[in-house]
Amino acid sequence: MRNIIIDCDPGHDDVIAFLVALANQEELNILGITTVAGNQTLTKVTNNILKVQDYLGVHIPVSMGYSTPLVKELDVQPQAHGATGMDGPQIPEPHSKPTGMHAIEFMKKTLMEAEDKVTMVCIGPLTNMGLFLKTYPELREKIDCIAIMGGGINRGNTLIKAEFNIYHDPDAAKIVFDSGIKVVMAPLEVCYAASILLTETEKFAEGGKVSRFVYDLMKFYQGYAIRNGWDRTAIFDAVPVTWLIHPEFFTAEEYEVYIETDGRYCRGMTVVDTRGYKGELKNPKTVLVDADREKFIEFLFKCINKLDRIYA
Amino acid sequence: MRNIIIDCDPGHDDVIAFLVALANQEELNILGITTVAGNQTLTKVTNNILKVQDYLGVHIPVSMGYSTPLVKELDVQPQAHGATGMDGPQIPEPHSKPTGMHAIEFMKKTLMEAEDKVTMVCIGPLTNMGLFLKTYPELREKIDCIAIMGGGINRGNTLIKAEFNIYHDPDAAKIVFDSGIKVVMAPLEVCYAASILLTETEKFAEGGKVSRFVYDLMKFYQGYAIRNGWDRTAIFDAVPVTWLIHPEFFTAEEYEVYIETDGRYCRGMTVVDTRGYKGELKNPKTVLVDADREKFIEFLFKCINKLDRIYA
Amino acid sequence: MRNIIIDCDPGHDDVIAFLVALANQEELNILGITTVAGNQTLTKVTNNILKVQDYLGVHIPVSMGYSTPLVKELDVQPQAHGATGMDGPQIPEPHSKPTGMHAIEFMKKTLMEAEDKVTMVCIGPLTNMGLFLKTYPELREKIDCIAIMGGGINRGNTLIKAEFNIYHDPDAAKIVFDSGIKVVMAPLEVCYAASILLTETEKFAEGGKVSRFVYDLMKFYQGYAIRNGWDRTAIFDAVPVTWLIHPEFFTAEEYEVYIETDGRYCRGMTVVDTRGYKGELKNPKTVLVDADREKFIEFLFKCINKLDRIYA
Amino acid sequence: MRNIIIDCDPGHDDVIAFLVALANQEELNILGITTVAGNQTLTKVTNNILKVQDYLGVHIPVSMGYSTPLVKELDVQPQAHGATGMDGPQIPEPHSKPTGMHAIEFMKKTLMEAEDKVTMVCIGPLTNMGLFLKTYPELREKIDCIAIMGGGINRGNTLIKAEFNIYHDPDAAKIVFDSGIKVVMAPLEVCYAASILLTETEKFAEGGKVSRFVYDLMKFYQGYAIRNGWDRTAIFDAVPVTWLIHPEFFTAEEYEVYIETDGRYCRGMTVVDTRGYKGELKNPKTVLVDADREKFIEFLFKCINKLDRIYA
Repeated sequence: MRNIIIDCDPGHDDVIAFLVALANQEELNILGITTVAGNQTLTKVTNNILKVQDYLGVHIPVSMGYSTPLVKELDVQPQAHGATGMDGPQIPEPHSKPTGMHAIEFMKKTLMEAEDKVTMVCIGPLTNMGLFLKTYPELREKIDCIAIMGGGINRGNTLIKAEFNIYHDPDAAKIVFDSGIKVVMAPLEVCYAASILLTETEKFAEGGKVSRFVYDLMKFYQGYAIRNGWDRTAIFDAVPVTWLIHPEFFTAEEYEVYIETDGRYCRGMTVVDTRGYKGELKNPKTVLVDADREKFIEFLFKCINKLDRIYA
Repeated sequence: MRNIIIDCDPGHDDVIAFLVALANQEELNILGITTVAGNQTLTKVTNNILKVQDYLGVHIPVSMGYSTPLVKELDVQPQAHGATGMDGPQIPEPHSKPTGMHAIEFMKKTLMEAEDKVTMVCIGPLTNMGLFLKTYPELREKIDCIAIMGGGINRGNTLIKAEFNIYHDPDAAKIVFDSGIKVVMAPLEVCYAASILLTETEKFAEGGKVSRFVYDLMKFYQGYAIRNGWDRTAIFDAVPVTWLIHPEFFTAEEYEVYIETDGRYCRGMTVVDTRGYKGELKNPKTVLVDADREKFIEFLFKCINKLDRIYA
Repeated sequence: MRNIIIDCDPGHDDVIAFLVALANQEELNILGITTVAGNQTLTKVTNNILKVQDYLGVHIPVSMGYSTPLVKELDVQPQAHGATGMDGPQIPEPHSKPTGMHAIEFMKKTLMEAEDKVTMVCIGPLTNMGLFLKTYPELREKIDCIAIMGGGINRGNTLIKAEFNIYHDPDAAKIVFDSGIKVVMAPLEVCYAASILLTETEKFAEGGKVSRFVYDLMKFYQGYAIRNGWDRTAIFDAVPVTWLIHPEFFTAEEYEVYIETDGRYCRGMTVVDTRGYKGELKNPKTVLVDADREKFIEFLFKCINKLDRIYA
Repeated sequence: MRNIIIDCDPGHDDVIAFLVALANQEELNILGITTVAGNQTLTKVTNNILKVQDYLGVHIPVSMGYSTPLVKELDVQPQAHGATGMDGPQIPEPHSKPTGMHAIEFMKKTLMEAEDKVTMVCIGPLTNMGLFLKTYPELREKIDCIAIMGGGINRGNTLIKAEFNIYHDPDAAKIVFDSGIKVVMAPLEVCYAASILLTETEKFAEGGKVSRFVYDLMKFYQGYAIRNGWDRTAIFDAVPVTWLIHPEFFTAEEYEVYIETDGRYCRGMTVVDTRGYKGELKNPKTVLVDADREKFIEFLFKCINKLDRIYA
């Protein structure tokens, strides 16, 4: 069983990633959730995860982290996630509260108390993760892996070559990527490869409480794809969580990856060296390059259906 | 009585600044010391302050902070402070230990517990202070003032226009200067104006235990001035501490000050707007522009002589 | 007699600088004028100098140079010089035309043909001068001095620490300052020291054709000073031209000066090392630091009065 | 028949590109050659093209351009091209001389005199081309196309993501790519796709004077490939010249391409937007994405064999 902390900025796809983890607690021991500004403000994304937990009756501790990037200005994404960061589902405001610990305090306490190593699942900007490593460098030994949704091999979304999570805080991302800790990176390409068809989404409408909640999430979230005339949409953050459970769904390569922190066009780019030169790689990252889409989507439905039974 | 936390990188002048504070405990309530990499590595500067405290039999809690700047590489100053960061005096290695709390944890705990506001005395690079404010922005209300040794009005030392403390971590300095908290800045100019004459230094040789310790510090520290043919040397970090007790020794001006974080020649520059345009200043800083040197030096001797009597 | 080429972006003060040169042709042999975008677009500033020459019946060849800076975007200054770049005087549109040679072609031809060395008087952004040196580096031997209005010792005007001419094209300025050619720099400080009182300006109203033209120029140009409540205004570009004839009006220092080409606050700063360290200066510049205001103004009136007699 | 000016930094592959043009004068009217610092210093690359022309008895006018990039430092490539920039063949030093005109003067004169539009074939850093456009923007109408060897779609060679020609002068490249003139770009990918096998190279040994000269060039030039264990090598600069004659050998796509001029990892990157979003492209470039290797190589041999007959 793998211990995990989920560091996130929910965000529709963050919530679905959380649900996938929740459906697999025999394999993933969720020690806690930390939140970070990104898709929306820190207050809003924290509120969203608390709402979801209260709605299901789940109470994994939530600790709030940084409300702004290390150096850059805050730059939230209402065009993708709406004014609340989780527009779509109509569920009640939360009663639960965050722990009162800062995200990096929670990470510190949890890692110090953990007997085994912990996997950090980072599906928002890397501000919390980067500043945790900057503040408590001695605790990197307690981390076995940092699984990230972020970056791209040859493309971006916020910029031509920069993906949102890395673009939002490249300076923090650089700390993480240069840390020497094993990084598994789910870039845009693998997330698009694992996209859900709009026709598949419809099946959630017929399910139970959780399925219908996911359906409401997806109806809002896939609006961007519909407006672009696409027949499918990526559920980005669900990819690294699924990889933890079913790495065999994915093709992975070892590449050197660096973070570009400057430049008009490339600030926030994950510079992936795909040139295939011989010789030993310096500080390689595991980059997911392709996915078995059908297995990924089948697994997603299996997870949500399982939650339908548990949280009826 | 003013509550203070001393955030420092000892460093000869940091130690003298600490001694001045120690001699004025009826006015300054030293809640703790935090250390940061700068003049030397974090390990060395922490060791230095523990040595000094053990030597005197003083036990103010010391908490270690950041070992590297926010974004830049570590860049220590052995040419000024020697291999240990406090070359010169031959005093025993310390028995005391740091608190085990990180500097920003100590700051958080101390500010939360303090009934009154606290003055942060920052005489090293601003990494601890900047990341404290980034991590716990809600606690800025507990800080009444940040008194800094750093920057210059029209000059630098590390670069033509950049002073070492700001140059070492301009990104952290920017957080502090843009925080909206009252900043009192002792730039190079006021520190040079308050310099001690090499002839005056000699008087420490005739004093008690603390005087002779200061004498040994100064004999090493003024080497740079001697090699340059100067007749005096600045004791930079003692200036903001003295200002806390005797602001009347100094001339101050209110200026807008910004931190330049980029550029080949100006990275780490404190951009002080001395142009005197009319109109309300945006977020002004209190900049010490001149000192009554004789009163400053007289006070320094008074402090050290007082410590001679206490720590005989 | 000194051969000069005037490289300018007229601009009210450029025109007055030109008039000062014109009044001193026994000392300054004006080989030509080159124009550069700055105070206004290239088309407008060229039109302005042609208008002035036609108005006086003077026909020094005018060659158009660069319409944009080396790397930055064009950033003209209508708030200082109006929509035409020379708002105020009502004089006819020009009949004369530019030479058809590019500024750097004219400089090349003129320097190659000149028996003696030539002084380049650069009173606009340094785009022409920088790209001339980049294109024809072998001709630097024909230049005895580059006299510049630009930069500041401890202040700016466009930015806190950046003066307009250097700010507008710092990359070109860097080429000039790093060229090894003797540079004489009239920074903001000396220009302000040589300011004309608003009360003095009134005297131009009573003079001849040229005086009244200067009066109309100044009535517009000093508007900025009046709006700020000042009692005087600098005629920036007239300073380096006057220095060519009467260097004894000015106090000069030799300083190392570097151009900062990056940074949010310091891009375009002239980094002047005023610290006075001992040892030989690397590639020093002659920086005018102060002026005898009364002599400067008296000389200005003498020049304009002389032109009144010539161009009645 | 297409008028061309070849702007180059010979360089082994520049020479072969020149030979391909020389063999196709019924289709390409070579108006002149301009040289620029890149593979080696300006003096050396100019000497190389003069040597080659003298060796063949060809006398196309050669005009020297810029010896340094617009903003960056010179950074030559002896590891690829040797100390001379054309190591390998033992041919006599040249008797011919350059025109005495600067490259941008030659371009200006040639374009002004040309009745038809001219194609600029730029196979070195873009310093000449960029500064020509900056200096004579009105002449862009005389250029029908700028065919470039430079950049990469998803990779670099000098940096992970930056190709040498663009990396060497990204600021000049930006001027060219933002000029609005039609750009055809042969990036690294198409050049590698068109590589010559080491076994194919051997056939040059059996040919005439020109073949054996090419053989000597290749024996040195393919050393890098051999040391890396590759079975083939790209002849980069021959690709855009071949495209002029046989565009049907290549697959091309229209992409938006921007030049990144800043950043530690991406300075000099051609940012190619391959994401395929719908809608009209802003200022697209024609990017060669693949080549029919066998046709390309067959054509190369045909060209060199033809030259064997002409320059026996």
